[in-house]
Amino acid sequence: MKSYDIQSDAAFSVPERDAVYRCIFNRRDVRGQFLPDPIPDQVLARLLHAAHRAPSVGFMQPWDFIVVRDLAVRTGIRAAFEAANREAADMFTDERQQIYRRLKLEGIVEAPLGICVTCDRSRTGSVVLGRTHQTDMDLYSAVCAVQNLWLAARAENIGVGWVSIIRYDDLREVLGIPASIQPIAYLCVGYVSHFLQKPELESAGWLPRTPLSDAVSIDRWQGQDASDPLFEHL
Amino acid sequence: MKSYDIQSDAAFSVPERDAVYRCIFNRRDVRGQFLPDPIPDQVLARLLHAAHRAPSVGFMQPWDFIVVRDLAVRTGIRAAFEAANREAADMFTDERQQIYRRLKLEGIVEAPLGICVTCDRSRTGSVVLGRTHQTDMDLYSAVCAVQNLWLAARAENIGVGWVSIIRYDDLREVLGIPASIQPIAYLCVGYVSHFLQKPELESAGWLPRTPLSDAVSIDRWQGQDASDPLFEHL
Repeated sequence: MKSYDIQSDAAFSVPERDAVYRCIFNRRDVRGQFLPDPIPDQVLARLLHAAHRAPSVGFMQPWDFIVVRDLAVRTGIRAAFEAANREAADMFTDERQQIYRRLKLEGIVEAPLGICVTCDRSRTGSVVLGRTHQTDMDLYSAVCAVQNLWLAARAENIGVGWVSIIRYDDLREVLGIPASIQPIAYLCVGYVSHFLQKPELESAGWLPRTPLSDAVSIDRWQGQDASDPLFEHL
Repeated sequence: MKSYDIQSDAAFSVPERDAVYRCIFNRRDVRGQFLPDPIPDQVLARLLHAAHRAPSVGFMQPWDFIVVRDLAVRTGIRAAFEAANREAADMFTDERQQIYRRLKLEGIVEAPLGICVTCDRSRTGSVVLGRTHQTDMDLYSAVCAVQNLWLAARAENIGVGWVSIIRYDDLREVLGIPASIQPIAYLCVGYVSHFLQKPELESAGWLPRTPLSDAVSIDRWQGQDASDPLFEHL
């Protein structure tokens, strides 16, 4: 171990730690609060650098980022969303369908830009360190890049919304993405009028927040032990 | 919009923003620097709360977290890693295989605990808002939970290493996870002697860091325009 390989300023202070938690707890999936204000290039570059510093399996860095500013391109993406969303609405019945149709689920045109995150599964060759037994690890690396970008955006007071109600092949067609490249996420990105206190689907009564204690077990699946002191803190 | 739905302290200050970036940039996949020091329950609970605040498709919160403290269980997981790692090493040839065999790729027993993150794909029913057209969105939600936990750990000066060289069915067997539940990640979690300046695979010469500018394009796939001022900041 050479000394220059070691971080010399490794420790986080309590205020720094608390800023990270505040970012994690106050991140929202933004759909309806976007402002048209442009994002300065140096700010956008910081978001992309944050994404690029995500963990990647075998250090393959399989992601690419298409920054979509052109309104005509974003209009094409919104049309692809609308086609998928009509199909999606029909999959719900009765009252759920009524709630679904009232929800605003994207801000593709209102936000000043989109970022499409993709995964090049053949980057660095067919055998990838760490992907030998869990074959989706490269996709998961690209998802980590999305989450890094999302959190960095929140710290920049910028909102992000992940549009998943869209066919991958429609995204490929509008953005000229080859068939060999896997789209992972289309993100709407922009400053916002405000951030919501809670997830919109929670406020709308779609589903409640699960108690964390229901999701945690000790040493094995559903190995809950109510006497374990960890549960006092969940 | 009711006023109590709006975050009253939404804006991040510059020092808060910089703490988030420092966390993102200094997160490492830790394998060899774990200390045996126990993680206090209230700290562990904070990491789990951070994971639980990840975005989830349709607010389904599909994740569960198995906290593995028992050394016998962790020894079983290490045996499963070793079996997979022998197979993995044989997939590389010549000099790459020699480098591979020298790399330390996990800290399952050295770290005082593991956290297995899983995804319950049938939670909240078969039709999930936002998963209608991108069927892996629930898996991606669980990956976002992993990345939240990883970043929160870094802000707590705790190291995390993602063990992906392991068969999912071996993880299921050791931890009693039903066949219907998808394991996403086995994480080694513990305080560390130090954090490394760079990813180990970069320092070991396995692969270089890609220039971010190679990964960014404008408005369409490989739509690079070198005159775009964004590239001055990448």
